[in-house]
Amino acid sequence: MTDSDLDRVIAAVRERIDPDEAERRALSDAASELESRVHDALADLSVDADVLQVGSTARGTWLSGDRDIDLFVRFPDDLSREELETYGLEVGHAVLPDGHEEYAEHPYVKGTYDGFDVDLVPCYDVPTAPDIRSAVDRTPFHNAYLVSHLDDELAADVRVFKRFLKGIGAYGSDLRTEGFSGYLAELLILEYGGFESLLRAAADWTPPVSFDPEDHGTRTFSDPLVVIDPTDPERNVAAVCSAENVARLQHYARDVLDDPRESLFFRADPDPLDSEGVREQLERRQTTPAAIVFDTPDLVEDQLYPQLRKSVSGVAAELDRRDFDVFRKAAFAKNRAVLFFELAVAERPTVERHTGPPVHVRQHAEGFFDAYADDDEAYGPFLDGDRFVVEREREFTSAEAFLTSEALFDVALGTHVEEILRAGEYEVLVGESVAQLAGEFGAEFGAYFDPRP
Amino acid sequence: MTDSDLDRVIAAVRERIDPDEAERRALSDAASELESRVHDALADLSVDADVLQVGSTARGTWLSGDRDIDLFVRFPDDLSREELETYGLEVGHAVLPDGHEEYAEHPYVKGTYDGFDVDLVPCYDVPTAPDIRSAVDRTPFHNAYLVSHLDDELAADVRVFKRFLKGIGAYGSDLRTEGFSGYLAELLILEYGGFESLLRAAADWTPPVSFDPEDHGTRTFSDPLVVIDPTDPERNVAAVCSAENVARLQHYARDVLDDPRESLFFRADPDPLDSEGVREQLERRQTTPAAIVFDTPDLVEDQLYPQLRKSVSGVAAELDRRDFDVFRKAAFAKNRAVLFFELAVAERPTVERHTGPPVHVRQHAEGFFDAYADDDEAYGPFLDGDRFVVEREREFTSAEAFLTSEALFDVALGTHVEEILRAGEYEVLVGESVAQLAGEFGAEFGAYFDPRP
Repeated sequence: MTDSDLDRVIAAVRERIDPDEAERRALSDAASELESRVHDALADLSVDADVLQVGSTARGTWLSGDRDIDLFVRFPDDLSREELETYGLEVGHAVLPDGHEEYAEHPYVKGTYDGFDVDLVPCYDVPTAPDIRSAVDRTPFHNAYLVSHLDDELAADVRVFKRFLKGIGAYGSDLRTEGFSGYLAELLILEYGGFESLLRAAADWTPPVSFDPEDHGTRTFSDPLVVIDPTDPERNVAAVCSAENVARLQHYARDVLDDPRESLFFRADPDPLDSEGVREQLERRQTTPAAIVFDTPDLVEDQLYPQLRKSVSGVAAELDRRDFDVFRKAAFAKNRAVLFFELAVAERPTVERHTGPPVHVRQHAEGFFDAYADDDEAYGPFLDGDRFVVEREREFTSAEAFLTSEALFDVALGTHVEEILRAGEYEVLVGESVAQLAGEFGAEFGAYFDPRP
Repeated sequence: MTDSDLDRVIAAVRERIDPDEAERRALSDAASELESRVHDALADLSVDADVLQVGSTARGTWLSGDRDIDLFVRFPDDLSREELETYGLEVGHAVLPDGHEEYAEHPYVKGTYDGFDVDLVPCYDVPTAPDIRSAVDRTPFHNAYLVSHLDDELAADVRVFKRFLKGIGAYGSDLRTEGFSGYLAELLILEYGGFESLLRAAADWTPPVSFDPEDHGTRTFSDPLVVIDPTDPERNVAAVCSAENVARLQHYARDVLDDPRESLFFRADPDPLDSEGVREQLERRQTTPAAIVFDTPDLVEDQLYPQLRKSVSGVAAELDRRDFDVFRKAAFAKNRAVLFFELAVAERPTVERHTGPPVHVRQHAEGFFDAYADDDEAYGPFLDGDRFVVEREREFTSAEAFLTSEALFDVALGTHVEEILRAGEYEVLVGESVAQLAGEFGAEFGAYFDPRP
């Protein structure tokens, strides 16, 4: 393969993702009109504030079809939090009369204008990024840094890279994806001077990989990928990015360099499975599926997915500890949430082996021996090498017995998940009956049984 | 419990094991007559040799009812091996006209006289034990050392200790038992000055435990118990004694001190099980038994048992490696031999997980990915953290499939066992059908399902 193959693929991708002149103008007109409305609204307030368009649409790195306009209203940092919120919402409602309030670190107004989704976010005007009073205060610094460093060509490569990350499923710093944020993607393009050089470098990374564009970092991080925020020496922009997503980028960088193809940038999800399809897979694999199913708690995704993952890991660790070998595990969430376990071993003998101390550790050994010597249910104590061993009755001889017992609640679970389970508001499915979940989770099962890097 | 309880138990044991005057006299008379026959036979030979009674009956440490008389005929060490054997057998047949030849390191004559079992063994008269030309040459040195160090009281304690070792199943330096030899028992009594002091000390041992009665050891040993031979600075008398038998002595030393009772010295074997009893045990345990059964190869026990143990360990390790969890294992031998495995997991899914290299180890990662990328039978490669994983078809989904396959022969087996298996002269039983083995191995199954320290 020659570079020109990759160039041709990139050109074809750009055909599809570069906003055209009309789109750019429409966006620019809308942003100008919104900014001028903000100025009008601010004029009615006795406070010195300005407005700033931020985000990908402010710096030419959005993908065609994205309809997000982010406007930040910067207030003096001697304002109280309460004043900031009051002013912010007042301006928001004035600019977007049909908008509604949402809540991130503080409330803001979200609405639509001329077909665009508009966020109108109040923030503090602080002298430097490390001075921020809330997370959103950092955004104007990011925006200023990128606007001053990205030219049109680099912005185009950012778009291609973002499309690539979307294609391979690694785009987004939300806690469900744990991938690459837009800002991180932009900094990496800046770091390597373009998409192809980034691919060639990433293909050979040996994590941990560290960058410090402004050479001002003051902390060390244990993350697989470290990019010191050029506007904040104490922050790793890639803190959320998991080792798996770093590996994902490395793998697909090699893949697309080796075999450039447009389809990688626009990859379709695996076909969903219906219940018959799920049954066929299970029949083929001869594993035992088990699912804990409950109504999804009312949480934002950034809270929900960490809780689901913690719960899945906690239950899986306990299943493993009880010798029910977890072959693979997953968490799904729509209206209902599913903690899913595929077991290689779902049943165990009634006896379990319990190894005691070496006989020569007298006090412990005597204690162990005495504890079991008169236990008619146990075999032993007998010797295996220099240690005592007993074969005693196992608490749960099937994974189902454990999952439907109260012992389930002793596991480390996500807070809200634990509440739901303790309240008994869940169902345990074991074996073929999990196939009925395909109605709601067909796409998830499709991806589960067709796993890709 | 007071010491006097232990004293009373010891006195009661001695009632049963101390040879009475009549037995001593009968033995002494028989030994004298045999020695004089040896002298007569030697007189007809043109060689300067002497005769020596050795073994427990020579030093008053035998247990009542033992009927063994060991006579060693010491020949000059300038004799060739061939001459030694010729002279030895000539004397042997002259002394024991109805005797037959047996073979240890060289041939010797075994026969009976006046109700005693007599071994008439030729050996070399070497200056010191380290000069020995064959293992039996060492015996006269051991005998001389013990005769000069054991008085009647110590000899009595040796008898009690030997009876104790028999009771707990730790007596014998054969490779089936891997326990305490008579000579080792005698040296330990000498070391501690008596049975009770030995018990009190052993109860607190922290292996490795080392003794060097003559303070002349020249080597280090990695055995759990080291007793440097007082007649040979390079030899550990306890080399054969397993960690398990050291632990066994420690446990029962504590036990008999804590609760002195005669029954420990004369313990009966567990009740044998019939096939119904074996089935009941398996039903209770819910394990899956598997047995490889073949005609016992024609080997002495010291060759047979190490081979059986090696074979059992080899097969068990491979079963474990293939994820069939071996719960317990054993080897039985009578006319037939049995490699016995009790499995906690006897079946596995059709898929097995295969973890590849971290993605960043580029060459290996690419090799792994390419090897499975087009494999329609495999799931993946996908990512788990920074590594590739595939789920591929498992070679054997049941322990039975493995045990009845040729893959069995790839396991490290005892030489003769491997020959038999390769010749196909074996049977594999899995599940309830193993119960039929109770006809031949009822005692072994009885002990297996009633395991004691």
